[in-house]
Amino acid sequence: MPPIAPATRTTLARGKDRAAYDADSINSILDASFLCHVGFIVDGEARVIPTAYVRIDDAIYLHGHLKNQMMNALLDGQIACISVTLLDGLVLARSGFHHSVNYRSVTLFGRAELVPADKKVAKLDTMVNHLVPGRAPHLREHTQQELNATLVVRIPIDEAAAKIRLGPPIDADKDYDTDIWAGVVKVETVLGEIDPCPRLKDTVQAPEHVLKFHEQGKLFQ
Amino acid sequence: MPPIAPATRTTLARGKDRAAYDADSINSILDASFLCHVGFIVDGEARVIPTAYVRIDDAIYLHGHLKNQMMNALLDGQIACISVTLLDGLVLARSGFHHSVNYRSVTLFGRAELVPADKKVAKLDTMVNHLVPGRAPHLREHTQQELNATLVVRIPIDEAAAKIRLGPPIDADKDYDTDIWAGVVKVETVLGEIDPCPRLKDTVQAPEHVLKFHEQGKLFQ
Repeated sequence: MPPIAPATRTTLARGKDRAAYDADSINSILDASFLCHVGFIVDGEARVIPTAYVRIDDAIYLHGHLKNQMMNALLDGQIACISVTLLDGLVLARSGFHHSVNYRSVTLFGRAELVPADKKVAKLDTMVNHLVPGRAPHLREHTQQELNATLVVRIPIDEAAAKIRLGPPIDADKDYDTDIWAGVVKVETVLGEIDPCPRLKDTVQAPEHVLKFHEQGKLFQ
Repeated sequence: MPPIAPATRTTLARGKDRAAYDADSINSILDASFLCHVGFIVDGEARVIPTAYVRIDDAIYLHGHLKNQMMNALLDGQIACISVTLLDGLVLARSGFHHSVNYRSVTLFGRAELVPADKKVAKLDTMVNHLVPGRAPHLREHTQQELNATLVVRIPIDEAAAKIRLGPPIDADKDYDTDIWAGVVKVETVLGEIDPCPRLKDTVQAPEHVLKFHEQGKLFQ
């Protein structure tokens, strides 16, 4: 993917030193998460919906039910705005004004295109594998009815910008000399217990791909 | 706050059994987080921006710079859509179709109102205390210049709905009898290390309110 040139929508007006427009910065954030917030318009009003995604090459893919309002709104030709946000820390400064958070975020814009029927399985399986690597081959195959009920859309990354904050609080010069404590409390998203399905057959053990995934400990790395 | 009646925008068309419209369900989710995604319209196109918030009574409050595009767009009279999403688990089913996540989410709609100058400090301090309880009294006081540069808006919760998924995978009936492993991998957002500001005076120790906050271990409970 070539570097993504900042366009009007994605050029940061403020906080310019936190912006990145290169594909590596953007993709590394997109690939670290699977949860985005999709902004779109219905009847002239803004809507935001959290949903799963996967990036493949220079596009992201979403899926939803045939009658899903968001999916149908996206397919009316409008430009969707998609936000991915990873929270990395609470930045506790010496004044309220300089409190902040450490984060990695991407905002991207693109027009959704319907993924044709014969390409759906591959995209859906990639979404599952993006959630838990190696899981798709272990699952029961998709039925035709399930595939018919599922829309998959491709949103080419027409414009995108990453915005990243890291490091300690940045305080007003005169405040560094006070006795006010300041610092960062790190935030991590971690994997907790595995709860096997209560209806699992007694003989079925957690497979290698699940154990290996669980061992990594963290989500959104 | 009285129960919030579902209106057209917030009545769930599908997944009705996961919806809740009562104030307790909605407020408990809003109070568990401080990070929302705000949907709004600029030049006829949707925008989504992550930002901090605090709920006070029947409204949420956002803040931003005087020239912040989002703040100014919200103050043009449009109805904002705000999404709060807490990820609680990965739901690994026996088919790709039934994969899901456990989550607690709120979608709310309202029109922003400017908080007058004489009420700003109280709201900003409440936002800091919502991040780390008890912190605001320890900080350097706001300067007039900082207050002048900061817009605070109140968004009354005119319409809201919570949507919650919990529990094990729900698979197609015939799939329970297979040897495919299914279960939930829990997800938690936790507090990691405390990194004191490198410019902290040697004599300044982490205060009680920070240590107590850090001891709770989890964010978004």
